[in-house]
Amino acid sequence: MDPILASPHPDPPQGPDPADRSVEVLCIGTELLLGNIVNGNARWLAERLAALGIPHYRQEVVGDNRERLIGAVRAAAGRCRVLITTGGLGPTPDDLSTEAIAAAFGAPLVEHPEIWAAIRARIEARGRVAAASNRRQAFLPEGAAVLPNPTGTAPGMVWTPAPAELGFPIRPGFTVLTFPGVPSELYAMWEATAEPWLRQAGLAEGVFASRMLRFWGVAESTLAEQVADLLALANPTVAPYAGAGEVKLRLTARAEDPASAAALLQPLEAQLRARTGSLCYGADTDSLASVLLERLRQRGETLAVAESCSGGGLGAALTAVSGASDVFLGGVIAYANQIKTALLDVPPQLLERHGAVSDPVAIAMAEGVRRRCGSSWALAITGIAGPGGGTAAKPVGLVHLAVAGPNGSRSEALQFGPSRGRAWIQALSVGEALNRLRLELEG
Amino acid sequence: MDPILASPHPDPPQGPDPADRSVEVLCIGTELLLGNIVNGNARWLAERLAALGIPHYRQEVVGDNRERLIGAVRAAAGRCRVLITTGGLGPTPDDLSTEAIAAAFGAPLVEHPEIWAAIRARIEARGRVAAASNRRQAFLPEGAAVLPNPTGTAPGMVWTPAPAELGFPIRPGFTVLTFPGVPSELYAMWEATAEPWLRQAGLAEGVFASRMLRFWGVAESTLAEQVADLLALANPTVAPYAGAGEVKLRLTARAEDPASAAALLQPLEAQLRARTGSLCYGADTDSLASVLLERLRQRGETLAVAESCSGGGLGAALTAVSGASDVFLGGVIAYANQIKTALLDVPPQLLERHGAVSDPVAIAMAEGVRRRCGSSWALAITGIAGPGGGTAAKPVGLVHLAVAGPNGSRSEALQFGPSRGRAWIQALSVGEALNRLRLELEG
Repeated sequence: MDPILASPHPDPPQGPDPADRSVEVLCIGTELLLGNIVNGNARWLAERLAALGIPHYRQEVVGDNRERLIGAVRAAAGRCRVLITTGGLGPTPDDLSTEAIAAAFGAPLVEHPEIWAAIRARIEARGRVAAASNRRQAFLPEGAAVLPNPTGTAPGMVWTPAPAELGFPIRPGFTVLTFPGVPSELYAMWEATAEPWLRQAGLAEGVFASRMLRFWGVAESTLAEQVADLLALANPTVAPYAGAGEVKLRLTARAEDPASAAALLQPLEAQLRARTGSLCYGADTDSLASVLLERLRQRGETLAVAESCSGGGLGAALTAVSGASDVFLGGVIAYANQIKTALLDVPPQLLERHGAVSDPVAIAMAEGVRRRCGSSWALAITGIAGPGGGTAAKPVGLVHLAVAGPNGSRSEALQFGPSRGRAWIQALSVGEALNRLRLELEG
Repeated sequence: MDPILASPHPDPPQGPDPADRSVEVLCIGTELLLGNIVNGNARWLAERLAALGIPHYRQEVVGDNRERLIGAVRAAAGRCRVLITTGGLGPTPDDLSTEAIAAAFGAPLVEHPEIWAAIRARIEARGRVAAASNRRQAFLPEGAAVLPNPTGTAPGMVWTPAPAELGFPIRPGFTVLTFPGVPSELYAMWEATAEPWLRQAGLAEGVFASRMLRFWGVAESTLAEQVADLLALANPTVAPYAGAGEVKLRLTARAEDPASAAALLQPLEAQLRARTGSLCYGADTDSLASVLLERLRQRGETLAVAESCSGGGLGAALTAVSGASDVFLGGVIAYANQIKTALLDVPPQLLERHGAVSDPVAIAMAEGVRRRCGSSWALAITGIAGPGGGTAAKPVGLVHLAVAGPNGSRSEALQFGPSRGRAWIQALSVGEALNRLRLELEG
């Protein structure tokens, strides 16, 4: 072959006999083939498999069609050790994954009375009546074990079809794991049952430990340049991800046991934190809100909020954190100007002179809510989230953020620009407000 | 088969001989299998194919691996009329799509000097020197036509492999279209060359129109039974989807032109709305908040909110809707009891006697915020979002919702249960509150 055309095959690094450990993902749902939703489940599963060091060479999507589903399952049985499916476990007629997978291997379906009892109990606890169609969800192929679903009605299954003369090749030990398509149910089931199963089956080679460092106030490209030498490491690895306003670095180490993997991560994390300083606000499940609440808790201080353009989003971010109530008292959603005056004592003259989106009004909102709620600290947000309401002087995306505290108040104007839209402006306003107080407390 | 288990096959509506027009999508890239990026190209292509009325039954992802790529292309050749690939057209060693596709059908590669000249011209126009590796991009299988790339260096191809004795089945007229993985290049090439090609090849049979009806207050299984006969229709089709608390029905019609497709949808939508009554709250981009705001706007009325366990989420849902400000005035986040008293005038004795999570307190919160804000209507939410704070009498998931308005106030207790977690309880509280006022306004 012409050397210009020669091509290596750069698959990810593999342990011994990757084919004996390889996992394929089959996502089932006509909504994927119509382009109604993006296949976030495939991406999430791919990330989990990579973190476990499990070889993953193929993903497939088919619709809610029995014949094609059977064809896809049979083909996978000849290629991989484990097939993970998502979708098609619900009660409606187009949910046919379990039945089709059983049919692919000629296995009868068997009712599991304990599943049916659990489904009825869950539905009746919400004051509803289980429909006859829900009973379909209690049937699994003969020999399959239940993969419990802690958060939804439909369980999945773990099934190693018995070897039989079926006219198509099946890899030894081929096993199917089924999950619902609802992401929150998939995630909960994966953590609780699938990941331990994959480890126990010996599919995860060694142990992967990972840590997600979280950053606010820096662009992904800037952070990547700052840590460029570390992005080239082989073990542990560092990979950047961009989120809504935040940037993340995922640190992953592979070792023989969890302690050794953690020992690889620790100095790398220390080095990254030393290099990035206060840009790094937390790790793993931390949020800006959880970190701020914890700082305030340690100081025995409290917080209140006054929100105009964010409309409650700042309070929602704080109360998304369980246990927020010992720090977060509450606040005022002052969307209309009359509420800024009635509930936050913002003088009407101030609103007239400077407009609602201004430093003086932001400070008056923060001081007003701090006084009314009797909190140690207060945050205020007022801005123009758009798409309407902008002017040349005060364009869409202009937001004023104020912090009021024991040492006085200050406000600052930020310009997020109109191009990313209303939800983006609202979300970034919330993040910037939380981050300002975090930095203030860090001194 | 047990009738409980009987399953129709609700694919989207099809024109004549769908197999002769079906398109598969093969996305090539190890970054997809590592979960580094979500497969937005597959979704975008699916949407474009649906809009053209082209049957699309399967998507696949493989890594930058020659052997698996050849296997996937050969299998597709036996199933579909057109295979669309994305990725692997670049100059680096792991870009091997063109070479592997040629090898799949035993075709030699031929250099196209005009491609190489265009690549050099484009690179040199940026003041750079074309690398030898760029020359790989000028090779296509014998007989392939160039699919021009107006925005990038790598063109794609349109290739109908010549029939040959290859030992695997090939559908008559099977054609491969290759695209780069860079989304902006894919989009530009699609519009400029691929879509016209698909139309000219007679693959775009008519058009699809679709409509998403949105429901609140009904389980997916219950709704599916209520409309079971319509779920079996062939054109237009109806398919149910479950969301966070809401249920959706997607109506899809296929016809010769957009007006005819819309005319097929209209009576079906009317029938579904008549059958489900007020369970159907809207369609397409409607949200419970947007529908409620619009109802209030038409009546010239205003709204305020008082939130305890939802912490601002109700306000955030309302202000997510642009233009909310002419109806939504604001409200109070009364997370701590002292705020319920200070800003909502809830009597301390009421809190002591009934507890914060009770009908009397919910009503006092709603009436307090309505009076303080001077709104026509008010909604209040107080509950136990957990995971801590529950008791036997008032368990996690218990939420009281109150509506106050011109005709007085009422409150209701709902039990969402603890199993789906804090965010779920908060989100459902918000949805139920919005829905209660929507139903009250509908009478």
